[in-house]
Amino acid sequence: MAAGRSTRINSQIPKQFCKICDRPVIQYSLSAFEKSALIDSCLVMIPQGYAERISQMVEGFRKVRWILTGGETRHQTSVIALDFLRSVSPSIVVFHDAARPFLSVSLLEKVIEEAKVFGAATAAVPITDTVAYFKDDFVNSYIPRDGLYRIQTPQAFRYDIVVNALKDFEGEDSTKPVFLSGEKIRLVEGDSYCFKITKPKDLELARVLCRFWKGD
Amino acid sequence: MAAGRSTRINSQIPKQFCKICDRPVIQYSLSAFEKSALIDSCLVMIPQGYAERISQMVEGFRKVRWILTGGETRHQTSVIALDFLRSVSPSIVVFHDAARPFLSVSLLEKVIEEAKVFGAATAAVPITDTVAYFKDDFVNSYIPRDGLYRIQTPQAFRYDIVVNALKDFEGEDSTKPVFLSGEKIRLVEGDSYCFKITKPKDLELARVLCRFWKGD
Repeated sequence: MAAGRSTRINSQIPKQFCKICDRPVIQYSLSAFEKSALIDSCLVMIPQGYAERISQMVEGFRKVRWILTGGETRHQTSVIALDFLRSVSPSIVVFHDAARPFLSVSLLEKVIEEAKVFGAATAAVPITDTVAYFKDDFVNSYIPRDGLYRIQTPQAFRYDIVVNALKDFEGEDSTKPVFLSGEKIRLVEGDSYCFKITKPKDLELARVLCRFWKGD
Repeated sequence: MAAGRSTRINSQIPKQFCKICDRPVIQYSLSAFEKSALIDSCLVMIPQGYAERISQMVEGFRKVRWILTGGETRHQTSVIALDFLRSVSPSIVVFHDAARPFLSVSLLEKVIEEAKVFGAATAAVPITDTVAYFKDDFVNSYIPRDGLYRIQTPQAFRYDIVVNALKDFEGEDSTKPVFLSGEKIRLVEGDSYCFKITKPKDLELARVLCRFWKGD
């Protein structure tokens, strides 16, 4: 999933294509997909007008078989991707945010394995901070943090399950429509490396981490 | 606040005393307090049995005037700290988790300035991930993420406000009792550097970041 336009970051180009340690962000997680024996092929969803640049970025990634322009929202992009994959009839599909560069092969494979068993699985990390809603720059209410997780990607699904769910339901990620369609979403403990680059400070952090990132 | 025992991390010593780049975690944030002209003195709250080791760790930090053993819970530790400070009669007190090493002076001072105006302020970061409650390793429910923040430290308060609040209310951080006592808690945008070391992966991450951390 690299079709976002990074409206939240002050950047000329979307964050998933920014360079960290001389390589575009998207290449980091693609390396994990490339290494995993559980992955057959990759479909890269991109924003309008980026086809040529992204083709160059993914050169050498032999599993990247398709590059496709996404829609206006994450939901539309997911629907376009799943429609396209119909002809391939995959058993399992994995969604991953290209803006999460530090993906380990072990996390990717754990999510896939759990999706094979349970139909749907996602990486998520427990929230250890106090959590509150703010309104007009003041605390409005606190919510219990027991059992509370931030959902990351990768997220993996049996193809038929996610296709059916996205016909009827929407959500800010791909697990929510699947959950709303009545399926169970299995937890896989993610990690703090697998954060999403959203703000300028996150990009700065990624530019430090990339110097040491070797994957696994 | 360095009185926690790090039950969530597999570590012989509490995480705030672990070494990252040859210095104990606690020294990093103390440096920010040391540098800020808005800080007069520091009180370090520690676990039972650590007095001697911590005395050595804070040697050279001229603003550290007191080291005190905390209680069983964060709430108890806060009450002990505030009781002790009564004789000093501070105008503003700042709470900071020693397990958040990467504290910038600018964030610290922003929180203090806002507390001077509004009585209470905390660093917090907006949650950009999808957030859900999990039960028995499956998603149980999703919650709206609009306006949802993870509350960090530093947190600053007018002394009288926080003392009164902690008499009647408890909470997993210090803003919650103050909020429950009827006061407003002002938002200060924190940053992704100011994360809390909770899990082994966080400590690993801190060991990468410390090589580049210069403060501000």
